[in-house]
Formats: sequence, C-alpha cells, structure tokens
Amino acid sequence: MQKPFSYAVIGTGAVGGYYGSLLQRSGKDVHFLLRSDYDHVKRHGLSIVSKNGDFVLPQVNAYNSPHTLPRCDVTMVALKATANGILPDILPYVVNEKGLVLLLQNGFGQEELIAAIDGVKTIVAGLCFVCTTKPGPGYIWHQDYGSVILSQFTKDNSPGGISLVMQQIAADLAAAGVSVDMAPDLIDARWRKLVWNIPFSGLTTLFQVDTANIVNSPPMQRLAKDLMNEVVEGALALGRIIPDSFMDKMITNTQKMHPYFPSMKLDFDAGKALELDAMYKKPLASAAQHGKRLTRIEMLYEELSFLQEKNNISLR
Amino acid sequence: MQKPFSYAVIGTGAVGGYYGSLLQRSGKDVHFLLRSDYDHVKRHGLSIVSKNGDFVLPQVNAYNSPHTLPRCDVTMVALKATANGILPDILPYVVNEKGLVLLLQNGFGQEELIAAIDGVKTIVAGLCFVCTTKPGPGYIWHQDYGSVILSQFTKDNSPGGISLVMQQIAADLAAAGVSVDMAPDLIDARWRKLVWNIPFSGLTTLFQVDTANIVNSPPMQRLAKDLMNEVVEGALALGRIIPDSFMDKMITNTQKMHPYFPSMKLDFDAGKALELDAMYKKPLASAAQHGKRLTRIEMLYEELSFLQEKNNISLR
Repeated sequence: MQKPFSYAVIGTGAVGGYYGSLLQRSGKDVHFLLRSDYDHVKRHGLSIVSKNGDFVLPQVNAYNSPHTLPRCDVTMVALKATANGILPDILPYVVNEKGLVLLLQNGFGQEELIAAIDGVKTIVAGLCFVCTTKPGPGYIWHQDYGSVILSQFTKDNSPGGISLVMQQIAADLAAAGVSVDMAPDLIDARWRKLVWNIPFSGLTTLFQVDTANIVNSPPMQRLAKDLMNEVVEGALALGRIIPDSFMDKMITNTQKMHPYFPSMKLDFDAGKALELDAMYKKPLASAAQHGKRLTRIEMLYEELSFLQEKNNISLR
Repeated sequence: MQKPFSYAVIGTGAVGGYYGSLLQRSGKDVHFLLRSDYDHVKRHGLSIVSKNGDFVLPQVNAYNSPHTLPRCDVTMVALKATANGILPDILPYVVNEKGLVLLLQNGFGQEELIAAIDGVKTIVAGLCFVCTTKPGPGYIWHQDYGSVILSQFTKDNSPGGISLVMQQIAADLAAAGVSVDMAPDLIDARWRKLVWNIPFSGLTTLFQVDTANIVNSPPMQRLAKDLMNEVVEGALALGRIIPDSFMDKMITNTQKMHPYFPSMKLDFDAGKALELDAMYKKPLASAAQHGKRLTRIEMLYEELSFLQEKNNISLR
C-alpha cells in the first residue's frame, strides 16, 4: 500500500475545481490555488452542481499564492493553455521532491514547456472528456460526461507505458467517482482527442452553432469528416494509427449526444482568448515537422485566428 | 460597315440595366424584358446614377413577356445564374436567326446549359468587372469600375479566338463608353476572374466584412493567397497557365481599391440565394474532371453552403 498522494490544484476553474472537489470529497488532502475567487472560496468553500448529484465543500484549503500553498505529491495543472505562461512562477514552489505534475489540458505541445520548469520531473497528462463551466465564484456546474484518460509524457515522444504514479493517480480518481482509462502512448491519445476537438470546437465557434447543427448538416458533416481524416493523417505522420472506425464512432456519438457548445465556443462568447495555439497551431506544426501539411485544419486555424482578430479579443 | 446590332436585355437588374442603358444612350436599338419593375419602367424609364455621370432614359422599350419583345440580333442575358432555369421559356422567342447570346454572368458552366436551348447558336460571354446595385425599381446605381472582357464560347472548350460578332459587340460597348477587352480563350478568362472572386466573394460573405478587412488581416491574406493558388492549380489542370504575377496584382489592386462588398455578400445581406453553384461547385467539378481536387475551395464551398442553409434562405 502506497502512502496517499496529496494534491495541489493550480487553476481552480471549471475543470480543476471539479476534479479537485471530487478528490477532496473522497478523502484526499487537496490544496487549491485561486486568484479572483480566493476571498469567496476561503469563506464559503466550493459548490458543485452535477448531473451525478450536487454537493458542497463548505471548507477547502484555499491559497492566493504559490508561496503559502504547501508542497504536494501531485500538482494538478488545470489552467487554460493560454495561461501557461505563469507556471514558471508557480510550479517550482508547489511541486515536492517527486516533481510530479498532472496536466489536465486540451491540445498539444504544452508538456515540453512545463517539463523545462525547475523542479518538474514527471508529467502525467489527463485528457478530460467533460462538460463543466464555472457560472460564478466557487460555483462549478458539471453538465455532462467526466471521464479522464491518463497518459505518461516522455521527452522523446515514445510511448511511456503505464507507470506506477499513473496507476496511483488513476486509483485516486476512480475512488473519487471518475471514470478513468490509462493509455500507454500520449501522442496517440492526444491525436485521438483531436479527432473530435478539431472539427467540433472550430466549426461550432466559427458558425456560432452547437454540435447537433454541425453533425446534422450535410455539408458540415462532410467537412467534419474531412477534417477528422486530416487529423488521422497527421497522427499517421507521427507513426500513430487511428482506425476509420474511431472516426465513425465520433460522428455517431455526436449525433446521439445532447446538443452541446464546446468550451472554445463558450470562451468565444465570453470574449476570452481561444486555445488556438494548443488545439490547432501546435498539432499543425507537429505534423509539418514530420512532412505532412494538413490543409483544411490550417484553413480552419486561419479562419478562427481571423475571427478572434476581428472581434478584437486581447490575448491575456 | 456592318448593319447595326439590335439588343434585347434579359434581366434588367443592376448589370443588365446598366449596360443596356449605356447602349441605348449611345443610339443603339435596345429592348428590355422586365418582371417586377415593368410598370414603373414602362411609365418612367430608367435612371442611372453613376460615378461617370448620372443620366435618365425617360422612355425605353419595356416588355413583360418574351412573346411581345421583338427578336433581336444580340440577346444579352444578365440574370443571376441562379435564375437561369427560366431561359428555355425566353430565349427561343427572343433570339433571331443569328441565335446570338451575350452572357453577362459570373462563374462557370452556364454556357453549356444555354447552348442547348432552342435557337441559340453562338454565345459570347462578357465577364463584367463592375460594381452596380439596383436600389429601387428602374433605378441603377453604378458605384465603381465597369470594364468587360468578351470571349467566345466553344462546345469543346478550346480557345474560340476573336470572332467577328465579338468584335462588333466590343465596338458597340466601346461606343457606349465601356472599357472592353477581348480574350481569345474563355476558359482562361473565366479562371482568371475566379482568382479574385473565389477568395473575396466567399470570405467577405463568410465573415460579413469588406475586401479591405480580408486583405489587411495576416491570416486572411494568407488564406486568400492559398485559395488563389488553388484557382491557378485548377486552371492548370485544364491546361491554362496563370502567372504568379497575376495573383500578386489581384492582392495589390484589392489593397488599393476602396473597401468593397462583393455582390455575393450583398445577396446574402438581402436574403437572396448565393451563386454558389456557378462560382464554386462548377469550377470544383471542372477541376475534378481533370484530376485535380481543390481542397480549400471545396471547404469554403461547404462553409458557404452551411451558412446559406443555416440562414434558411430558400433557393428560388
């Protein structure tokens, strides 16, 4: 029996607040770093409204500085990728001698940046399939889904297998009520996630519609499939094989699920910066490095860049 | 000296009304077919507001039926391509024994359909570089430009050369004050026109912006150039060579010209059907027939189709 992990949550928003609360509710020692919500959460704790049952944590360990937050076994990074620039001022003061980061973020190429930060030794990526928002301070609304795929980052992008720390985190999440899978190859897992994210995040944002509008329109379903095919070609350029059946399943699942606004569309509505770098630019660059140009994805990236530029959203 | 040509104008809208009025003002025998504007024009004639000088034609030969309109030497077809379905009910009653049609339309593949109509023997295409609108009945506003490139249609798509009828129409238009060029190869001329139309009509409509917004945005200028490159590749598949300098000129001209809404964007704003078939679908099909798939243009076509579908515009 291993000693229980303690958890620091960096970015107590829709994702970090949700998983951190579940871990605390299951008895884990959790420490939350907050910015704008600090005063509210320090006083009132966190409230979760969830399709799996609402709950309140009237008291949580809340901090407004990485210098007062105790060093933890697992540092869960759940910021938007667009905010990762502040991590070099946080992680060196939060990770303990294990240097273990659990990265709950969409997209690509963030691990390399984080791995270079002082004190970081191991990164386990958690790919979240979850629909949560934060409607108010300390208030998390879990609308749907919630599963996580864990996978080990390696500097040479080779498959990292199923590590021991990954197994312990998986056990903690499972005990907290999260459906968890472990993937031996992070690159494969990331590209699989892009198969859905690239068409549906981008097209719902571009046209200001929901997932059902995309998947039920003949020209858009055709375009979504062509974009998926390019993701599969990109993965193939990196030596990862995603079968056609996986794409078919994504289309079928999207047709079955409740009409849904992906987080990029919600960010756009809220006037926030879009995660274009992590979700489009980095995968395009990675495929290009391996000799593959992904034309439609590149075009969608340019269109979304213009949309952001046109709406004059300042990048934070 | 040839006998002067008489002209029938089918579609007395922004384009047909403009060029037809110029021909009548220069002394030509011109007959206008009208639908909704018939009563007004019969009574009040046509009024042209133009950057080259306003003028009024208080009396014009106006008809509301192809059966009362006299047969003419040149039948100028200036409908939107989306309305060409009514031509088989019009052209057989309007063309004379010459069977000569002057087709003033954007886009592609319409000549084949028109050539199959009873009585049509020769089609001269007129590619119009003009910015006109029809703000009210019998009222044409000529905002900018106005030149026409004439080119002869041939059934086998080979270069038709500079025909005698083309020369006479060119002389008539020039005498009416129109800047005219003659192109020996219609396919080449059409694809050259698409070099501008495909990016700028589509992107201004998709994003509801003007030409300056497109050409001054780095991601959009990049995309516009990539779309232009695909048009050039499409032309090449049909054996037509468009030099890079032509694309550069289109970008430079667009940067220099007054910010402008292409007619597709105006059609969209007015809730009218978009000319997607003639401007996107047919060129895509033509390139595909010659073994070339134009990925970005196909994607733009799908996006515009969805935009039209989403706004629930009924095709007339």
